[in-house]
Formats: sequence, C-alpha cells, structure tokens
Amino acid sequence: MQKQDVIDCHARISPYVHDTPVLTSRLINTKVGAEVYFKCENFQRAGAYKIRGATNAILQLSDEQRSKGVVTHSSGNFAQALSLAAQSLKVPAHIVMPSSAPQVKKIGVLEYGGTIYECKPTLGARQRMADQIAKETGAVFLHPSNNEHVILGQGTAAFELLTERPDLNYIFCPVGGGGLIAGSAIAAKHFGESCKIIGGEPFEADDAYRSLQTGKIEGNNTVNTIADGLKTTLGDKNFPIIKKHVTKIVRVTENEIVVAMRLVWERMKIIIEPSSAVTVAALIRDAEENPKEYMRKKAGIIISGGNVDLGDLPFGK
Amino acid sequence: MQKQDVIDCHARISPYVHDTPVLTSRLINTKVGAEVYFKCENFQRAGAYKIRGATNAILQLSDEQRSKGVVTHSSGNFAQALSLAAQSLKVPAHIVMPSSAPQVKKIGVLEYGGTIYECKPTLGARQRMADQIAKETGAVFLHPSNNEHVILGQGTAAFELLTERPDLNYIFCPVGGGGLIAGSAIAAKHFGESCKIIGGEPFEADDAYRSLQTGKIEGNNTVNTIADGLKTTLGDKNFPIIKKHVTKIVRVTENEIVVAMRLVWERMKIIIEPSSAVTVAALIRDAEENPKEYMRKKAGIIISGGNVDLGDLPFGK
Repeated sequence: MQKQDVIDCHARISPYVHDTPVLTSRLINTKVGAEVYFKCENFQRAGAYKIRGATNAILQLSDEQRSKGVVTHSSGNFAQALSLAAQSLKVPAHIVMPSSAPQVKKIGVLEYGGTIYECKPTLGARQRMADQIAKETGAVFLHPSNNEHVILGQGTAAFELLTERPDLNYIFCPVGGGGLIAGSAIAAKHFGESCKIIGGEPFEADDAYRSLQTGKIEGNNTVNTIADGLKTTLGDKNFPIIKKHVTKIVRVTENEIVVAMRLVWERMKIIIEPSSAVTVAALIRDAEENPKEYMRKKAGIIISGGNVDLGDLPFGK
Repeated sequence: MQKQDVIDCHARISPYVHDTPVLTSRLINTKVGAEVYFKCENFQRAGAYKIRGATNAILQLSDEQRSKGVVTHSSGNFAQALSLAAQSLKVPAHIVMPSSAPQVKKIGVLEYGGTIYECKPTLGARQRMADQIAKETGAVFLHPSNNEHVILGQGTAAFELLTERPDLNYIFCPVGGGGLIAGSAIAAKHFGESCKIIGGEPFEADDAYRSLQTGKIEGNNTVNTIADGLKTTLGDKNFPIIKKHVTKIVRVTENEIVVAMRLVWERMKIIIEPSSAVTVAALIRDAEENPKEYMRKKAGIIISGGNVDLGDLPFGK
C-alpha cells in the first residue's frame, strides 16, 4: 500500500468521518517524561475508529455490489461502525452477532439501521452464518480487520495525527484483530519522519506478542481481559505488515489497564474504553522501563474508542 | 460591572486559565430541537470553572496582601481552584475544609500546595475558622461565590462562549452559590446579541428558585441531591444581579440529573459532574415543555466541571 493510497483513502472517507481532535495532558507528559499526543477516536462517529475502515471498504464496492449490501460478524465496535457507515451510504448491512453480545451493542446496531442475525458464540459459527448470508443475499463479506481496504481506512487516524505532528517518535496502538496497527504502520512509514509503531496488548490476550516471537499467527487459549476489543487474533492480510513494520508489542496487566483508564478519566475528563487504556498503560510501562528512550521525545497514542458499559465499570471505591 | 471590566478581567486571567473548547452533539441537538453548544469547563485547570474567579480575585490584591496569602472555606471545587491559582501566582493558600469533605478533594488541595484546616461540617464553624485564620495570618478572605472579583472571573467562560457564538439565544448555568450564573449574566448582557440566562437547579436544593419567587435569599432545609456543588445558597453580592438578569430557574429531579449525565458520558464521551448534568437536564426539560421557544434557536450550556468520584457513580446496571 503506497503513499498515494493513504492520501486517496483519506480523501474518500473524509465526508463521512470526523477528523478527531488531538489532546494533551501536562500531568501525563510529566508521568511519561515525553510529550504525549492523544488522537481521540473516542470522539469518532459511533464512538470508535472502526468507521474509517468500514467506510473505505464500502466505498470500494461497485453500485451493483452496494445494492446487495454488506455482511460482517462482530460482537462489538465494528458491528456498529459498519451499520452506521452503511446507513450513511444507503447500503444494507447484515450483522452477525454472537448471542452473548451485550444488549447495548445490539441496540447500537439497530439504531444505525443494521439487521442483526444471532449465532452461537464461537468463531466458527459466526463465519458460517456470515458466509450463508453472503450466499443468500449477494452481500459482500467485510472482515473487521483482515481486509486491505479496512486496514487502509483504519490507518487514516495515524495519517491525520502525523499530518498534525510529523515529528512523532512513536505511535502506540492497541492490537486486537490487527487492522488498526497495520494501517497505522503503513501511515507511519509514509508520513512519519522517523516514527516507530509500538503495540499494546493485555498479558491475558497476548497472541500478537507471541506471533511476533514465533513468526506465525498465534491464538489465545483464554482471554480473561477487560479489554473486550482485543480478544481477537491477527489475520493473513495484516500479519505480514505487522511483522515487517511494528517495532514491538508491550504487554500490560489487568491492573495496569484499570489504573491507566482511571488516570485518563480523572485527569483528562474523557471516556476511553479498556482497549484504549491498554495502549496508555503500555506507553507508561515502556517509558518506566526505558526512560532514556522517551527523553525529549514525542509519542502519539491512538485512543481507539470510548464505548463502555457505564453500568459495569472496573473502578473500586 | 461594565463591559470593559469583563474584557479586562479576561485579559488578566488568560495567562493562567484555559480557553476551553466548545463541543456539540448532533444527537443532543436533535433531542432538544435546537443547536446546543457545550462550553467545556470540565477541561479547565483543576477540572472546573472556579479557577477563573479565584485567579481574578488574587490578581486584584496588592503585593503586600499577596505575601500574606488568601483564605477560603470550601468542601469542593473552589478549595482546589484557589489552591492551584495561588500556587501559580506564588501566594500562600489557607483552605478551611469540613471534616466531612471527601478524601479525594483534600488530596487535590494538598497536591496544589494549599494548607488544609479541618473544621466541623457546619457553615458557622467554617466561617469562624476562616475569620480566625485571616486575623492570625493577615490573609485575605475570598468567598467562593459572593465576591465581585470572583463573580466577574466566573463570567469569563460565558464571555468566551459568546465571543465564539454571539448569536446564542440562551445560556444555561447551574446555580449553587450564585457566582457562575451572576457572572454569566453580566457577560450575556454586554456580549450577547439577545441572550437570556436560565439557571438549572435540583428540586432537592431549589433555594435560588424560591429566592426569585419571594425576592429575598432563601435557604434549604435539606439538600438530598447528588449535585454536590449546588447545595450552597446565594449571597448579597450576586443575588441582586441574578434577580435583575436571570430569566428563570428550571428545576430537575434526581433521576433527570442521572439520565442527563449518562447521556453526555455515553454519547459525547466526556466526563461531566452531576452539577453540570443538572444544567443539561434543565435544558432538556425546558425544551420539552416549551418546544416552540427552541425551534431554530441556539442554546449554550456552561459545563461547570468534571470532578467526580469514579468509585461512587450513580449509574445502575
């Protein structure tokens, strides 16, 4: 994916997505020992960066394809993002959701005009139902993270951040399915002056960390993490990009995630979801372990989203 | 207080406070049936508008007065704001806090370099201790809301909002001690094209509503509200301004406060405190009761602050 591809993608999706603000916090700068720039995709439409890739993927379809619609499987943010992107572009959206998906996310999909198909909560059941819907309706299947157009779209958040601050030394991204970090790596390669991409991942779902160690896509046996967006694994489209362009992946504990989330909520007064707190925690941990590498440096963070269940927060008394 | 006083005050405090952003939400515009502009003082230094008035009041003191310091009594945001303003201006800050004040607020005061004096949790005890400290140290007593310099300073949030949007038809403010709404009324008189000031108050602490009814300052027998910043009553410096320039006060239930707070957190992804949610709820209620008065209109809201105890939130499952 070339420099011009990123520029074209950004121009293509711009009418349908927000150019989100970049925030800073003196307290967090002091804590990290570097200038930290938060790219706030929690303020994005549908509350997460995912609408960027969803919009780009739909805009690549022919008129005939669009008339038949799109189909995906997702328990979370991509389900809502694809529904809203499809609604904006007047395309039918078929969303396969596991029966275990939170009610609030189902309501979000319905509000944005998506049609929900419930399936059993296994990856196999999801894919089978999505394939069947694609076959019956002629809708195009769009994978939430393992799709080149989706990857390119997700990278536009880093592109906007680097347009504003081309001198960033690092960009931190959460790693779930791998679409965001792969897209960000492409943007950093073309638009950063010398910008390393670092991933953040929970110890409890460290498949990407292990994949970089072994050189092949690893899975997770268990995923006991509050970072519900990071339970998925990498795909064959994004892993080669990650392997080539990502400097490292920093793993964090569940406690570090909650502490970082609380820090941002309390001090910056913005709502970030646990998956985004993973990335903040990863930056804090890496700066503590390698303080010299952060001295007089500038670090960006992609704050991936702000979709949380306010009735089920991890903050104790 | 004249037009030039507001301009001078704003210029005086600007090096020490943030010009906070103005946010909008399409969903809330649709709900209210008007364009709504949120002046986000939750992003202000120390998390609330209070530093504006505190800074202005300190800057009015002579060098000799400043060397002896300032004293106030407050259980909440003004305690932190005065401490931080005093720290920025290298002035000692003596803060009388009731023994019942939350630990997190005491920590805030200490972090900002204030000295805490604990007293019994009654208004009389607070004032007596503050008077005694003023006598012993020579520090100047600054009331959190019933002080002309404080009032003028608090009005600079509305001044900034009206500079950006002089065509606002309404500005909604929470009403606690009366400093913010009185200052906002002065700003609206001089800088609004035709801007009405409307107050928001909990039914459970509706002293200002009743004060406007009877024409004299009323108290509260009980204050069973989650809007902890709005339990105080008006003073002789701000009540005449409020009586003259405030159009009306809209009262809201505790449930309306929580619903409005949750709406803003979930949809705008920003953290606002219950006192600010009162104002959002008041706008929603008033627009529901008088839809014609909001058609094709523009309403500002002063989001007064974002200081909440994340370990004690009012959201149910």
